[in-house]
Amino acid sequence: MRELVAAVIQLGPIQKADSRSAVVDRMIALLDEAKRQGATFAVFPELTFTTFFPRWYMEDQAEINRWFERAMPNPTTAPLFERAKEHGMGMYIGYAELTPDDRHFNTSILTDTDSTIIGKYRKIHLPGHEEYDSERAFQHLEKRYFEPGDLGFPVWRAHGGVMGMAICNDRRWPETYRVMGLQGVEMISLGYNTPSVNSQRAQEGPDARLFHHRLSVQAGAYQNSCWVLAAAKAGVEDGYPLIGGSVIVDPEGYIVAESKTEGDEVLVHACDLDRCAFGRSTIFDFARHRRIEHYGLITEQTGPTS
Amino acid sequence: MRELVAAVIQLGPIQKADSRSAVVDRMIALLDEAKRQGATFAVFPELTFTTFFPRWYMEDQAEINRWFERAMPNPTTAPLFERAKEHGMGMYIGYAELTPDDRHFNTSILTDTDSTIIGKYRKIHLPGHEEYDSERAFQHLEKRYFEPGDLGFPVWRAHGGVMGMAICNDRRWPETYRVMGLQGVEMISLGYNTPSVNSQRAQEGPDARLFHHRLSVQAGAYQNSCWVLAAAKAGVEDGYPLIGGSVIVDPEGYIVAESKTEGDEVLVHACDLDRCAFGRSTIFDFARHRRIEHYGLITEQTGPTS
Repeated sequence: MRELVAAVIQLGPIQKADSRSAVVDRMIALLDEAKRQGATFAVFPELTFTTFFPRWYMEDQAEINRWFERAMPNPTTAPLFERAKEHGMGMYIGYAELTPDDRHFNTSILTDTDSTIIGKYRKIHLPGHEEYDSERAFQHLEKRYFEPGDLGFPVWRAHGGVMGMAICNDRRWPETYRVMGLQGVEMISLGYNTPSVNSQRAQEGPDARLFHHRLSVQAGAYQNSCWVLAAAKAGVEDGYPLIGGSVIVDPEGYIVAESKTEGDEVLVHACDLDRCAFGRSTIFDFARHRRIEHYGLITEQTGPTS
Repeated sequence: MRELVAAVIQLGPIQKADSRSAVVDRMIALLDEAKRQGATFAVFPELTFTTFFPRWYMEDQAEINRWFERAMPNPTTAPLFERAKEHGMGMYIGYAELTPDDRHFNTSILTDTDSTIIGKYRKIHLPGHEEYDSERAFQHLEKRYFEPGDLGFPVWRAHGGVMGMAICNDRRWPETYRVMGLQGVEMISLGYNTPSVNSQRAQEGPDARLFHHRLSVQAGAYQNSCWVLAAAKAGVEDGYPLIGGSVIVDPEGYIVAESKTEGDEVLVHACDLDRCAFGRSTIFDFARHRRIEHYGLITEQTGPTS
């Protein structure tokens, strides 16, 4: 038994007008609650500190850059890191990263129990589009505001196990989990902002969106015998609804905790990392069962042959 | 709308003592029923013509070979092919293949509406073990009796669409679907024999087995925007139970038809192959979203780094 008491911290909506410091205050209160419930590791959503700004079309780069963080921590977010250090808690936090050489990424970090940053991931599977799309019910401009991640899918030995990170749309791609699975990942943290309606098909509402979300994270956990901690930013942001459905999924693919609201909410579960061992020594013993000689197209070809 | 009316034909148990001709008679009756319901394509299970013999430990090669087919069709199975031709129906059929040069495969074939064989697949992900395993509640000797498939995961343009095949345990591996997805597959046929209890963990019973089965085929369908037709051999064979749960899954990952018994049963659904287009032109537009530069481990490495 290698128990890691983990918290998935869902955030309710963040309006355009909300200040980052107000968000940080909410995050600290939720971190305190997770601590009170015994957690030593907490997962926050994607782009935690602001509204989901890729729904807004912007052309002015200075205006765009206001949604990004030039440093992490920074004076506004530092109190969160200080509180986590006091609590001896590690964190996964998603934020919009602006690098010193002006590159833009949809990023997450992993911190140790003393709040030092020990890992960084940059979102690889950016959904959406680059230019204004009048065919959509609303915009999803991640391909405009970010470049695709350039750090691969690394894993880190931390918090008593092998930790991995992914962000939002990455969860729909089995390659995400598999690349980490091949590095022995035991727990994948993942934040997301998922609109409650498909912007390209109005009849695909929250039930379908939640179904696809659960299906993807449950399959990823099962097929790689690992825990998945998925934290939503949820609720209605300036009129645009996001699904909740934050979950903790065990290495058999079962949901062991799930959010009940679309507001600020904390899920805590004692995750036994040793539970990853059974699957990976039997039905998903990769070394015995995988047949890479037949998988070539997966890395040779981006799109389909026609 | 490109409609293919497809049947998933579940077979109930086949005992060791049952003759192949008795099984073929059952298959013909089920094919007739599928035809009556309008189907033009029928999917039979894995190793359809016999009991699931890999549960039995055998050392004598002559005894083993009795479970295999040296030709397909052959005098015993020919009446099924004749009936399919009369009906103008295509088929997917799984069987144990013994080649002229004495190689053994767990195989499936795809036939055209005139019963000519137009495609062959040999199971790549063989589960189980090679030697007698006294730790297991029962044996699962696929790795003893078969060699891994050597034909990759091809697709065929037939029945008005792009058709693919997989067998049983292949469905738990996302690579299976993805390699076919990258060739534009629109419908994957798949037969299986899945014990109702995990032979290495008695507490994992039929509910868990059905959950993992559904999770795998639904995720594979959704993430590759294709139909999946999954046909079980089900029920109690000489004291050993197999799950049912035959399903037809649509390109959104939803189950549109599911078996209700563990006996002989026919599921028919009018599958619109044009429904594959939405997913693959939006969220799963591979050419726009996949990032093969970060997937290298999937084809470089069979087992995990330690």
